[in-house]
Amino acid sequence: MQSSVEASKKIAAYRAVDEYVKNNTVIGIGSGSTIVYAVHRLAKRVQDENLDVVCVPTSFQARQLIVEHNLKLGDLDIYPELDCAIDGADEVDNDLNLIKGGGGCLLQEKIVASCAKNLVIVADYTKNSKKLGEQYKKGVPIEVVPMAYVPVMKKIENHFGGSVTLRMATKKAGPVVTDNGNFILDWQFPDKNIDWPAVNQQLLLIPGLIETGLFINMAKKVFFGMLDGNVKEQP
Amino acid sequence: MQSSVEASKKIAAYRAVDEYVKNNTVIGIGSGSTIVYAVHRLAKRVQDENLDVVCVPTSFQARQLIVEHNLKLGDLDIYPELDCAIDGADEVDNDLNLIKGGGGCLLQEKIVASCAKNLVIVADYTKNSKKLGEQYKKGVPIEVVPMAYVPVMKKIENHFGGSVTLRMATKKAGPVVTDNGNFILDWQFPDKNIDWPAVNQQLLLIPGLIETGLFINMAKKVFFGMLDGNVKEQP
Repeated sequence: MQSSVEASKKIAAYRAVDEYVKNNTVIGIGSGSTIVYAVHRLAKRVQDENLDVVCVPTSFQARQLIVEHNLKLGDLDIYPELDCAIDGADEVDNDLNLIKGGGGCLLQEKIVASCAKNLVIVADYTKNSKKLGEQYKKGVPIEVVPMAYVPVMKKIENHFGGSVTLRMATKKAGPVVTDNGNFILDWQFPDKNIDWPAVNQQLLLIPGLIETGLFINMAKKVFFGMLDGNVKEQP
Repeated sequence: MQSSVEASKKIAAYRAVDEYVKNNTVIGIGSGSTIVYAVHRLAKRVQDENLDVVCVPTSFQARQLIVEHNLKLGDLDIYPELDCAIDGADEVDNDLNLIKGGGGCLLQEKIVASCAKNLVIVADYTKNSKKLGEQYKKGVPIEVVPMAYVPVMKKIENHFGGSVTLRMATKKAGPVVTDNGNFILDWQFPDKNIDWPAVNQQLLLIPGLIETGLFINMAKKVFFGMLDGNVKEQP
C-alpha cells in the first residue's frame, strides 16, 4: 500500500496534468519523485485521447521518463516557449515562492520554467509552508562553478549570514556533480523573515554562482495533495 | 619591430606589474594578449627579486602562461582572497566599467576579479572610451548554458532590444565552447546611454545566463599604454 505522502503526490500530479495539459501543447517536464506520477498520467492521457504533446525535460531523469513513456521529446532550441511546465518543489510559501533543488536539478528546472507561460507546481502536503524554511530544513540549494565554490561559500556567509555547505555525493567520492557539471551548495539561511526577491537578486550578482533554488514570482498555480485525499490549490 | 598597439600593451602591463606586485602576495592572472606581457614581467621580477608570489589563473591560457614561466600556481580553493588581479579589457568607460570576454574567458575572469582586493586593468589606448560601445563594436559577451541559448537570446532581444548572436568557432564546426563548457552570446546593445549597473543586474536574473562580460564597479585602476609611449592612469 502507498504511504499517505506518496498518495498525496499522486493526486496532486494527476490533477495538474488533467487541468493543464491540452492537445497541441508543449509541456516542460520537471524532476523529482512527484513528477513520476505526472508523467504516468500524461502518458495515459496522450494514449487514450491521442494528444499531440511535446515534452521538454528539466534533467536527465525527466528525459529518461519522457523516453521510457514513449512521449515526444523536445528541447528549448526548437521550442523556446512552452505552454506549461509541471514541476515539484521542496517548499512553497504563501506568496508562491519556492525552494527547489533538493534533487540537484534547479538550473535546468529554472531555465525551463522561465520559458513556460504557466509554471504549475505539484507537491504533497508536507511542502506547504507559510514562510520558506518552516518545513524544508536543508536550506537553499545553489549551483556554483566548481572552481569558485570556496569563495562563493565565503561571500554568502559574509554578506547574508547563516552557513553554507558543499553537497557531498553518497555513491561516489566527493561532491554532487549536477547534470551541467557544476557543484551544489546548501545555504542554511539565518532567519525566516527574509526579503527573498532582493536576496535572490543579490545572490545572482556573485560571480561563479550560477543559479539559486529560489523560484520567486514564477509559479502560477500550486496543487498540494492533502492527507484527506483532496487537492488544495494555491491561489 | 613591434606595432604601436603591441608596444602600448607592453608598457601598460609592465607598469601594472611593477606597481602592484609585491613579495608574499597572491595575484590573479588575467587572459588575453596584454597579459602575456604582464606574465613576462612578473616572471622576470620573481626571479630577479626572489619574490614569493602565488598566481591564480583566469583561463586555460593563463594557467599555461603561469606554468611555462615557472611561476607558483594557486587556485581559489586554497586562496579564496587575492591581493590583486591583473587583467585586460576590451573596453573601459569613464566610470571604469568594462566590457570583457572578447577572448571568451569572462566567467573565470570575473570570478577571480571578485576575489581580489584590487582589480587592475592593463590595456592599449584603443580600449579607452567615454561610453561602452564607442570603441568595442562586438557587443557584450554573455556566457550561457548551452541548452538555454535560444530562449536567452530571445529574452535579451525582447527585454533590452538590440540583437544577439551565438559566437561561432573558426577551427571547429559549431559554436565557441568556453573553458567551462558553455556557449558565448554577443549582444549588440541598442544605444550607448544605458544604465549598465541596472542592466547587468537584470541580465543576471535570466535563468541560463551564467555571466556577463560587464564588469561594473570592479576595476580599481586602469593603465592604458599610449601611442606616445606614456602610460595613462585612471583614476
